[in-house]
Amino acid sequence: MPASDIDQIRARLAAHPRPADLAARRARVDALGAGYGLPPDVTVEPVDAGGVPAEWTRIPGSEDGPVILFLHGGGYVSGSLASHRHTVAQAGREAGARTLALAYRLAPEHPAPAALADALAGYRFLLETGVAPRRIALSGESAGGGLALAVALSLREAGLPLPGCLWLSSPWTDLALTGASLETKAGADPLISRAYLAELAGLYLAGADPRGPLVSPLYANLAGLPPMLIQVGSAETLLDDSVRLAGVAGAADVSVRLEVWPHMIHAWHLFFPEVEDGRRSLASAGRFVRAECAG
Amino acid sequence: MPASDIDQIRARLAAHPRPADLAARRARVDALGAGYGLPPDVTVEPVDAGGVPAEWTRIPGSEDGPVILFLHGGGYVSGSLASHRHTVAQAGREAGARTLALAYRLAPEHPAPAALADALAGYRFLLETGVAPRRIALSGESAGGGLALAVALSLREAGLPLPGCLWLSSPWTDLALTGASLETKAGADPLISRAYLAELAGLYLAGADPRGPLVSPLYANLAGLPPMLIQVGSAETLLDDSVRLAGVAGAADVSVRLEVWPHMIHAWHLFFPEVEDGRRSLASAGRFVRAECAG
Repeated sequence: MPASDIDQIRARLAAHPRPADLAARRARVDALGAGYGLPPDVTVEPVDAGGVPAEWTRIPGSEDGPVILFLHGGGYVSGSLASHRHTVAQAGREAGARTLALAYRLAPEHPAPAALADALAGYRFLLETGVAPRRIALSGESAGGGLALAVALSLREAGLPLPGCLWLSSPWTDLALTGASLETKAGADPLISRAYLAELAGLYLAGADPRGPLVSPLYANLAGLPPMLIQVGSAETLLDDSVRLAGVAGAADVSVRLEVWPHMIHAWHLFFPEVEDGRRSLASAGRFVRAECAG
Repeated sequence: MPASDIDQIRARLAAHPRPADLAARRARVDALGAGYGLPPDVTVEPVDAGGVPAEWTRIPGSEDGPVILFLHGGGYVSGSLASHRHTVAQAGREAGARTLALAYRLAPEHPAPAALADALAGYRFLLETGVAPRRIALSGESAGGGLALAVALSLREAGLPLPGCLWLSSPWTDLALTGASLETKAGADPLISRAYLAELAGLYLAGADPRGPLVSPLYANLAGLPPMLIQVGSAETLLDDSVRLAGVAGAADVSVRLEVWPHMIHAWHLFFPEVEDGRRSLASAGRFVRAECAG
């Protein structure tokens, strides 16, 4: 039964619905990461990344590998270093990479483009510390996946060096909410509904155009972007945000690899200590980063 | 210049346009394969595969590996054992696999479902020779990719054991010709136009419904199919046949990996002796088969 471990996660999520209160939501997602903890060989070092609160994670041997610059999910309104630390560290282990996770500013206190400005500052910080751009895996989950694409597009427009690869898990690429899977997967997705996404988009956009290329990279010209791994679960309302991204990026001559993981739910990587396909998908991402960003 | 080797292929294709005469077309594609030849360590053994002309290729050490059952491309009207022998043998090398290529019957002499009947006979032949289904990589290129999907769907409907994995390169999945890339990539694709596809579909269908699930698997319910690797070039009018297949298969909870290879043209694997990304994409397919069909 490959789906049984994810079904246990589903049961737990059903028993503890998302709170309406924003502070409670943020605390809930932070507690998820804190609850999993870290293996003893992971070291965590807080750092000021160009004015953005951030932290390094390292495992033995990762110092000479690629660097994963990670942008957490949480719909631009929640998520933190704490919520994703265990997952980021495991991705680093699989990639043989140091990781730099960014605590970019969140809406509604800081709507777009605050998150993008912070993510760009974090990327510039890596360059300034001497990391070769081709060894950076610009990565993000959910909203962080869309944000990673916005960073890459901004770098291209500014003529700055692009990262070696992009790793996007369950990316949210269309804040205009036009994907058919918002309806066709509504019954299968325990986390992400159209109504929830509409609320998040409203808070992040604060009146900006939902089809703007730096908030919804599905509508951008993606030509020139580096090789891209997109991972998505088949039980996601956001499935079409990934499939359509693969289509438009591929059509723009970007090297694309799309993985659809059966029965997996939004951001299933976060549950990897309990879900085998969470571990396997992180291992696949690690192999991708090793192959594309090791040069 | 990663695209320079494929540009040389483009120039050659432009200098030698596809003949209008069917016999000349068939001879041209056969000559392509014969021209490349085979490395000396490949052995070729003709075989009657349940009434279907076929051949094994083997490399040293492949006898205990998976088996690639290969269905060539050529729009259901051309292609042969000769045209694809070099590519099939290289795929076998990368996968550590024996390969069984089938000379299924072609239209217009034999319209649908003759090709499907032959491909099913070849699969049953493998089972009868004692090959474990989970070690079979059911594979096809272009029309052969659509045919491979039709085989898998037919097996599922018949309650027969499914293969361990599917490897599809540049698959033609929609004989109704509804993909947007038929227009958006018309200027980039040197081989496949809507008019050419319409001619081929007419010959193969011979009046059958172009949206029938066993000729156009894009319209089938793909639930229950094994893990699927789809490889497509970004310079193909058939790009959307792959992207949409990834979407519908993923939505049906099939494990999907889609690779879009920048600048590659339809069926670029055939040119692998001259094209680096032909070799790299065959190596990727080999890794996939080793991982998914080695059990």
